[in-house]
Amino acid sequence: MDFKLDKAIEILERTPGVIEELLNGLSQEWVMNNEGNDTWSPYDIVGHLIHGEKTDWIVRMEIIISDNDDKTFQPFDRFAQFEQSKGKTLQQLIDEFKELRKQNIAVLISKKFNEGTLNKTGIHPVFGIVTLSQLLSAWVVHDLSHIAQIARVMAKQYKTGVGPWQAYLPILNL
Amino acid sequence: MDFKLDKAIEILERTPGVIEELLNGLSQEWVMNNEGNDTWSPYDIVGHLIHGEKTDWIVRMEIIISDNDDKTFQPFDRFAQFEQSKGKTLQQLIDEFKELRKQNIAVLISKKFNEGTLNKTGIHPVFGIVTLSQLLSAWVVHDLSHIAQIARVMAKQYKTGVGPWQAYLPILNL
Repeated sequence: MDFKLDKAIEILERTPGVIEELLNGLSQEWVMNNEGNDTWSPYDIVGHLIHGEKTDWIVRMEIIISDNDDKTFQPFDRFAQFEQSKGKTLQQLIDEFKELRKQNIAVLISKKFNEGTLNKTGIHPVFGIVTLSQLLSAWVVHDLSHIAQIARVMAKQYKTGVGPWQAYLPILNL
Repeated sequence: MDFKLDKAIEILERTPGVIEELLNGLSQEWVMNNEGNDTWSPYDIVGHLIHGEKTDWIVRMEIIISDNDDKTFQPFDRFAQFEQSKGKTLQQLIDEFKELRKQNIAVLISKKFNEGTLNKTGIHPVFGIVTLSQLLSAWVVHDLSHIAQIARVMAKQYKTGVGPWQAYLPILNL
């Protein structure tokens, strides 16, 4: 699919609802267990998505479309959620994510981008020049990738429980 | 996590709603595109889940708890949806999945399984003896695995669109 802003927004606007439907009201074990060692639980992932709304996608979009000479993005903190989610319930995190996402989509729509704007560029701290359309595509894929991750983390809780079915369920070996 | 029926039902009962939230109202491209060649689109996956409700999980559960001498399961048809979904809209498929899942969970609850029943066994056509608790665990993991697959199939539509971000989004290379 070629990038089209309206198609991207179709995904972005539904992610908080998908995550709420996936996680809300589940037992703590489903929500708080991870894949072992330093991996993330579904709860951690929601915190990570919140931090992205605050410091990543829209912030970088603003840098790209700004008239600044320096278009270099700040590195994204992949561990901020461990501090920032402290003391919050999952429902509080989901509500926060919902609200931030709603605001960010409103900002995105308000810009009324044309083809030319989508080709404007910024500098990613690791891989250099990127376009606005690549940034917005990555935002969509990032959402979908964390939905898949949440499903995988929960699936892994039954890794031994499925017995020989493990051979037919490749998600358990990712 | 050890298998507990109530925890398993927490996941099983929300899957149709998660899939509805993920897919309902999306443009055709998101719903009908696949990962290339003989892979499945999100639309195909919903059809596959419907066929599982009709011929797989509950049917095999009934075989395990029956007094039949022959406890061998029928092989599951992984391609039935290509015929059975024909002419149906995605919304029709989602509604059908919702209804079947509701009925099947009602059947599951009506059995009032105890530990002993969960250890009863059947014969899988490929890997032999399996317990009821393994079958029910596999049902849960199967749901989560297809939620992850739907997210991945949609993510892949932007595989080239994300440009250099591909290196940070491993879902695009699965």
